[in-house]
Amino acid sequence: MTHNVAILGASGYTGAELVRLIATHPSLQIVGLSGNSKAGMTMAEVFPHLRHLDLPRLTTIEDMSFDDVEIVFCGLPHATSQRVIAELPDHVRIVDMSADFRLRDPADYEKWYGKPHAAPELQKTAVYGLTEFYRDQIKTARLVAGTGCNAATGQYVLRPLIAAGVIDLDQIVLDLKAAVSGAGRALKENLLHAELSEGAHGYAVGGTHRHLGEFDQEFSLLAGRPVNIQFTPHLIPANRGILATTYVQGDPTVIYDTLTAAYAGEPFIKVLPMGEHPSIKHIRASNFCHIGVVADRVPGRAIVIAALDNLTKGSSGQALQNANLMLGLPETEGLMLAPVFP
Amino acid sequence: MTHNVAILGASGYTGAELVRLIATHPSLQIVGLSGNSKAGMTMAEVFPHLRHLDLPRLTTIEDMSFDDVEIVFCGLPHATSQRVIAELPDHVRIVDMSADFRLRDPADYEKWYGKPHAAPELQKTAVYGLTEFYRDQIKTARLVAGTGCNAATGQYVLRPLIAAGVIDLDQIVLDLKAAVSGAGRALKENLLHAELSEGAHGYAVGGTHRHLGEFDQEFSLLAGRPVNIQFTPHLIPANRGILATTYVQGDPTVIYDTLTAAYAGEPFIKVLPMGEHPSIKHIRASNFCHIGVVADRVPGRAIVIAALDNLTKGSSGQALQNANLMLGLPETEGLMLAPVFP
Amino acid sequence: MTHNVAILGASGYTGAELVRLIATHPSLQIVGLSGNSKAGMTMAEVFPHLRHLDLPRLTTIEDMSFDDVEIVFCGLPHATSQRVIAELPDHVRIVDMSADFRLRDPADYEKWYGKPHAAPELQKTAVYGLTEFYRDQIKTARLVAGTGCNAATGQYVLRPLIAAGVIDLDQIVLDLKAAVSGAGRALKENLLHAELSEGAHGYAVGGTHRHLGEFDQEFSLLAGRPVNIQFTPHLIPANRGILATTYVQGDPTVIYDTLTAAYAGEPFIKVLPMGEHPSIKHIRASNFCHIGVVADRVPGRAIVIAALDNLTKGSSGQALQNANLMLGLPETEGLMLAPVFP
Amino acid sequence: MTHNVAILGASGYTGAELVRLIATHPSLQIVGLSGNSKAGMTMAEVFPHLRHLDLPRLTTIEDMSFDDVEIVFCGLPHATSQRVIAELPDHVRIVDMSADFRLRDPADYEKWYGKPHAAPELQKTAVYGLTEFYRDQIKTARLVAGTGCNAATGQYVLRPLIAAGVIDLDQIVLDLKAAVSGAGRALKENLLHAELSEGAHGYAVGGTHRHLGEFDQEFSLLAGRPVNIQFTPHLIPANRGILATTYVQGDPTVIYDTLTAAYAGEPFIKVLPMGEHPSIKHIRASNFCHIGVVADRVPGRAIVIAALDNLTKGSSGQALQNANLMLGLPETEGLMLAPVFP
Repeated sequence: MTHNVAILGASGYTGAELVRLIATHPSLQIVGLSGNSKAGMTMAEVFPHLRHLDLPRLTTIEDMSFDDVEIVFCGLPHATSQRVIAELPDHVRIVDMSADFRLRDPADYEKWYGKPHAAPELQKTAVYGLTEFYRDQIKTARLVAGTGCNAATGQYVLRPLIAAGVIDLDQIVLDLKAAVSGAGRALKENLLHAELSEGAHGYAVGGTHRHLGEFDQEFSLLAGRPVNIQFTPHLIPANRGILATTYVQGDPTVIYDTLTAAYAGEPFIKVLPMGEHPSIKHIRASNFCHIGVVADRVPGRAIVIAALDNLTKGSSGQALQNANLMLGLPETEGLMLAPVFP
Repeated sequence: MTHNVAILGASGYTGAELVRLIATHPSLQIVGLSGNSKAGMTMAEVFPHLRHLDLPRLTTIEDMSFDDVEIVFCGLPHATSQRVIAELPDHVRIVDMSADFRLRDPADYEKWYGKPHAAPELQKTAVYGLTEFYRDQIKTARLVAGTGCNAATGQYVLRPLIAAGVIDLDQIVLDLKAAVSGAGRALKENLLHAELSEGAHGYAVGGTHRHLGEFDQEFSLLAGRPVNIQFTPHLIPANRGILATTYVQGDPTVIYDTLTAAYAGEPFIKVLPMGEHPSIKHIRASNFCHIGVVADRVPGRAIVIAALDNLTKGSSGQALQNANLMLGLPETEGLMLAPVFP
Repeated sequence: MTHNVAILGASGYTGAELVRLIATHPSLQIVGLSGNSKAGMTMAEVFPHLRHLDLPRLTTIEDMSFDDVEIVFCGLPHATSQRVIAELPDHVRIVDMSADFRLRDPADYEKWYGKPHAAPELQKTAVYGLTEFYRDQIKTARLVAGTGCNAATGQYVLRPLIAAGVIDLDQIVLDLKAAVSGAGRALKENLLHAELSEGAHGYAVGGTHRHLGEFDQEFSLLAGRPVNIQFTPHLIPANRGILATTYVQGDPTVIYDTLTAAYAGEPFIKVLPMGEHPSIKHIRASNFCHIGVVADRVPGRAIVIAALDNLTKGSSGQALQNANLMLGLPETEGLMLAPVFP
Repeated sequence: MTHNVAILGASGYTGAELVRLIATHPSLQIVGLSGNSKAGMTMAEVFPHLRHLDLPRLTTIEDMSFDDVEIVFCGLPHATSQRVIAELPDHVRIVDMSADFRLRDPADYEKWYGKPHAAPELQKTAVYGLTEFYRDQIKTARLVAGTGCNAATGQYVLRPLIAAGVIDLDQIVLDLKAAVSGAGRALKENLLHAELSEGAHGYAVGGTHRHLGEFDQEFSLLAGRPVNIQFTPHLIPANRGILATTYVQGDPTVIYDTLTAAYAGEPFIKVLPMGEHPSIKHIRASNFCHIGVVADRVPGRAIVIAALDNLTKGSSGQALQNANLMLGLPETEGLMLAPVFP
């Protein structure tokens, strides 16, 4: 059986990545694509790498019919997403990839995003989309809020450790290296090839990155007390991938055992043998997340490193995994593509 | 029905690429992997990006059983391939990815590869593996000789034009830009990141590249007279992709029409609208080849540019396409993966 | 003795490159820097890599005093340059790095740049800034028109060959690979790291690149008849450097001898031993141009490859070399910086 | 006055970088270059980017005359350096760039480098080459031991803070991102462009990197008690540059004031305005080190980030700075080259 889906904001990188994944998904059919600034264009004009596919032309959201659509993937900017999703017909279910429904408390949203939430009632119905930890709720949700890509990576390391109470909650340092596609297709000087290539630098240093809102919400919930990690992302000259180096204090063996137990049956989360650690090169363009644990020379401390592809497992792959759940399909359907190396 | 296959030389890039493609191929099962220098290791140790797959351990060729194997993919170095393939049991069919069986005339082999051919009888049975042009022979071949990746790219541009007699055979310049994975996993100074990144230079300049043997053989056969093109490859700081800029003399519209007609029904060869031209960014990690035709300002001259991924359409994807034909499977099975962008 | 200079358009890449070079030039002092959109900012804010230098704050051109300025370097966009330079006081001499004064015939300017020239009288006084070929005129010029970076590279290969009459003027193909900084600091999607990295494609294919105006003008003048080369530039994923592969028809040895004779005494133009060819990696961030000649396997044809850094020898280094001449300084002063490798 | 210098191990990256710097140094003359595996070759053959320079041919060390040499720069591998330096004539002074004389205690050397030190008497005479902190001793030293490039970067952040007692000595995390040239010209799979580009991963994770020997030695000496930091280096896809993100616990303002005071008069160490932080793009190919301090959102914690070029300030530039001191030359002579951007 084929399920009809539409993608809003299909002219951005997460939209393109979704189309790439759905192209070989056996049960989904793309029946609508929106991209307001590029309405009227074909996807081949916007993304020549999708030239071989038979896809609908880009339209405005207003011109799109949702009559036959079961799932809408929404890759719009934050603030816009709220407004658009609030007006979708009741029968469609939504996988949002924006930041708009990630934070349960509208006050948190306002704190991190600088303006009041425009659809607080809808927010109450949203399920946080970190699949492995919200699986049952996602299955029946109408609205799933895809996580931040950095937020997903950090949580794959820290959730099991915080839940199990095996690390010091006040001494968590997350040093993250992010490839540039996570910044989207924005026209900014620091994203130019001439400026980023051969460069590397921090950004949102000092605890100002918006994904901290997600970390705080989720970790505090798990711990039953406020948890405020230190989180410093860096931009590196690569296109895809997040490498999250996490410094935690606790027994390295216990930490390792906790993670292996937590992810024992997971199809996409792979804990490497103790002492090994991952590279973003080895998960590129795939839905896999690799996690490694290494004991530090300082006793009672460990380094836990996770790697995933921000566009796939960090965003569009996660969205598709959630859509599979919502539609009652096998969770891994269309997502077992092997990483591209070299 | 599942067909059992084995890969010889699985520890190189073409071997890894084949495993990546076969991982989501519905009808093939990998039952043997050889990698002499890494025999005894798991593929996850050699290629951590394949960690999620259930694959046989690497063995030596001597230790491999071919009893249940239908197709052997051979990614060994040239000269070695001849020797190994000559000793394979009769019931296996072979898709060779080395250079050993590409040249029909053993004298040509010796000229370009510097030593006599060791299996000239076997050579006589080999079919040249450029799928779109040798489809019928490939279906029934025991031994298919995969083309050079540069040789494939140039032929996709030039074969229809030479066959149709629409260009000057004595004024063909092929200026090719090749990503570095085409050089394999060889440990050479000029392939180090520190030396290649931010660099670009020609190689085998002056008509000394071995793929000229293939061009000469195929083009002369098509034309019924000797054709000796000028061919200069360049190394660019990218991992995957070949961009072949071809300067030809003839009527641009006729050239365009000839190419669109030649590839009208082809699933993987896409001729862009007249005046557009391709990027290697748009075919990466896929089996597609994009071709563009632009009229030069000098009347009677055209620039034809082709782009493909050297590891996929230029090598392992081609090999799988040929294997599909040999096994009576749909030619595109497992190969419709969309390009990875960005 | 110190000469005071000012740089207009100092917030672009050519402006920054000039500051870098002048920073260690013993005889020049920067007394003015303009950058209209960034007026009021320090150079350290616009270009943190220049943080260690004691430089004037950026101003608007209107607010700049030219009273003590001997030389003005002008890195403004074309069309703007004409207007600004026309209003500079008589006592300043100008090294323009824009396209505005490169074409002697205002009709050519209009043809290639799409609008009438606004300062045709001033145009008559401009000297074309390809130092090695216009040295004497540059020394006494008030206005020197810096060449296009691609135009410079192609001319270093072809001028001596055309002047000597040793190649077929109707069979010249110039296939050029250009790094991205040549496109400037423009905010365009195709210049983003995510889109350019791992990519390569042609641009202005078919003979539409504006630098053809320079080629046509200079080559026709040299030959005494119209010369229309084929010229196809490509964008490659690197920051600095142009590699120009030139296909010419003529005797390779004669070609080689002609080039070595032409550049025998030149401090910056290095002809490699016959059969060798250059890499952009080996001239990066320097004022050197490397040229190699290789005989093709097709008799009577040669491949001549030149490499230079578009920001240095192709633009700001050339400008400084010309300023040295204008000021009676040693031509190489401040310009002997060795290339940066790796 | 000109001082004669020789470079041992001139066929590696640090050797080439020294030649690049000395090429425009007004007081040094290179009279000898060794490179045992490439003895007999010209530097232009080994490093074509140095083609314009008039340099001695590479010899073996045995064939080199030290009669007229004042300073020997030694870029040999560790273990080899000890042996070679021990046999140099008494009149030469040595700036070693290897690891052999960095650790004062031979037991430490054996611990970190896995074999006994072969010249323990010579070790006693060596001065640790971190210029800004050992200036007076370097001036009169016969043997200066250049620091590790990672070790230099971390020390520029931490020495003043440890010396001033303003941070918690037991809670120091140094997360370092290193470009690939720091690994030298070694032929290893993970240094190939195809494997490093688009990748990022940790190495020597868990406190096993040899530069920890330097950190432990220096920090414990400064603190008067053992200090064992956590140090995790990562390899990123860039050629030059180290970005060191340091997580410290202490008052951010005090930390900032301590660093600005410590480096107030330093020509090469630039502390950015409070809240700003550096990029490796902004110090590339220069001898500058940029340091930024940002207060974390967690009270009492700060992130201090330093950036320098591993080949320049981290190795060959440092060596030249030390040689200037040893020869009584201005410390900055030949080293004020501005960073190359973009």
